[in-house]
Amino acid sequence: MDDIQARITASFNAQSLMTTLGARRDSVADGEVQIALPFSERLCQQHGYVHAGAITSIADSACGYAALSVMPRDAAVLTTEFKINLLAPAKGERLRAIGRVVRSGKKLVITLGEVFAEEGGARKQVALITATMMVIETGTGLRD
Amino acid sequence: MDDIQARITASFNAQSLMTTLGARRDSVADGEVQIALPFSERLCQQHGYVHAGAITSIADSACGYAALSVMPRDAAVLTTEFKINLLAPAKGERLRAIGRVVRSGKKLVITLGEVFAEEGGARKQVALITATMMVIETGTGLRD
Amino acid sequence: MDDIQARITASFNAQSLMTTLGARRDSVADGEVQIALPFSERLCQQHGYVHAGAITSIADSACGYAALSVMPRDAAVLTTEFKINLLAPAKGERLRAIGRVVRSGKKLVITLGEVFAEEGGARKQVALITATMMVIETGTGLRD
Amino acid sequence: MDDIQARITASFNAQSLMTTLGARRDSVADGEVQIALPFSERLCQQHGYVHAGAITSIADSACGYAALSVMPRDAAVLTTEFKINLLAPAKGERLRAIGRVVRSGKKLVITLGEVFAEEGGARKQVALITATMMVIETGTGLRD
Repeated sequence: MDDIQARITASFNAQSLMTTLGARRDSVADGEVQIALPFSERLCQQHGYVHAGAITSIADSACGYAALSVMPRDAAVLTTEFKINLLAPAKGERLRAIGRVVRSGKKLVITLGEVFAEEGGARKQVALITATMMVIETGTGLRD
Repeated sequence: MDDIQARITASFNAQSLMTTLGARRDSVADGEVQIALPFSERLCQQHGYVHAGAITSIADSACGYAALSVMPRDAAVLTTEFKINLLAPAKGERLRAIGRVVRSGKKLVITLGEVFAEEGGARKQVALITATMMVIETGTGLRD
Repeated sequence: MDDIQARITASFNAQSLMTTLGARRDSVADGEVQIALPFSERLCQQHGYVHAGAITSIADSACGYAALSVMPRDAAVLTTEFKINLLAPAKGERLRAIGRVVRSGKKLVITLGEVFAEEGGARKQVALITATMMVIETGTGLRD
Repeated sequence: MDDIQARITASFNAQSLMTTLGARRDSVADGEVQIALPFSERLCQQHGYVHAGAITSIADSACGYAALSVMPRDAAVLTTEFKINLLAPAKGERLRAIGRVVRSGKKLVITLGEVFAEEGGARKQVALITATMMVIETGTGLRD
């Protein structure tokens, strides 16, 4: 588990988009990863809410790392597809994306994620995502 | 049409995430909008390709503005859901997202989008998106 | 609640595809509906498993009726989109689709559904669906 | 090409759900397959339109066979996920699903499909689907 934490932390830190958005890797468990994104006026759509693209970015990364946490040590992860339903306007102090593994196969790992807006101790779900992650064997030149 | 162009330009400029990513509104036609995103090392995932979240951000905005271009003058647009298939690693000089209206209803507008990676005059499709956009009447406090 | 049960039963019985497939409405609760589909050799794909289309049919209906159970009395329901991940080959004595409401809005209801294959007391998840249901006011000629 | 036609015809005929619904394999080309479904009162939802599950069944099969048409001779095809947008109520003399390959990879083939309602020479699009098909090597016990 320490090994998984270290690998996911290193990979997360190598995702420059996460830094650009201001996202932080939060908890990592076997099959579940959380990413937090503090609200910023740099991340909005035209009505002042967090843009669907920013919501999706942390949801995708949370699902991808949840998948990676159950893959073989020498595998890398690649998103092949996801679908997101946006449930409510995203505003508040921060967003939290929680990705979980639904089924782990040899070639594909299927994940389900939720994104919550947090404000003053309360939270409200703002998005629901399902994503397919591909298991990439690392003789391919990809590394996590 | 000039009016549509002006409205979409104003709305796009109000999307701070587009500025943060470095995206630029490109052509606007009736039912089709293009957005370009120059490659930047600030937008990557752990393998050095453009992160799915950045790809999705411009795909969602292109589809949303394509939808807005066919809505009544006083309407605003809100994404309710989208699904994206990632077809190939995204690298090159720039990405180009093209959003098009497939069906325009009173309450919902359905769109189809493609994202291409461009390099030295050649282009390769890297993503395919379908998105549902909601028509919001502007007595609701939302403005585009 | 009795009223909801009666409305959903009447509507389900009017869905001729459910009869053609051999599906049965099972439990109905506020925001959750179950549909069972006994295995039949009439429902298969080329490898002898239940066809994705049959799996999807009961998943869509379960989600649609879950949505209807939280809508106003005089509303009808229409599916606008869904996405399904197929997790494992579908075989066994019967399939069970469980649809649940994730968010209930005035115009749209978002649902999440699971389909399980049941065999000898054990069950295995074979599909995961997210679906958007539209609230249709019944001055439109549609009835449930 | 004759070989592909023969393989797809044999596989289609082995899909008992297609027979149960009354669907017919129509044209087969390299990377594009069409399936027709005559309207029947056995296939409807509660408002008398063709049920989304029946629409999806032929859309999935058309996309799956389009994918199979570009796979190696000894491969079988399995649907891993799809998403469908329902654009208009499905009624008329028949439905026609057209599946096309968007990208063909070694492990996954991505497809895009459209479903039209046909009536008296005219046609109207009723659904849009994107689907991921898996390439299954046939030492696995699956055959097409």
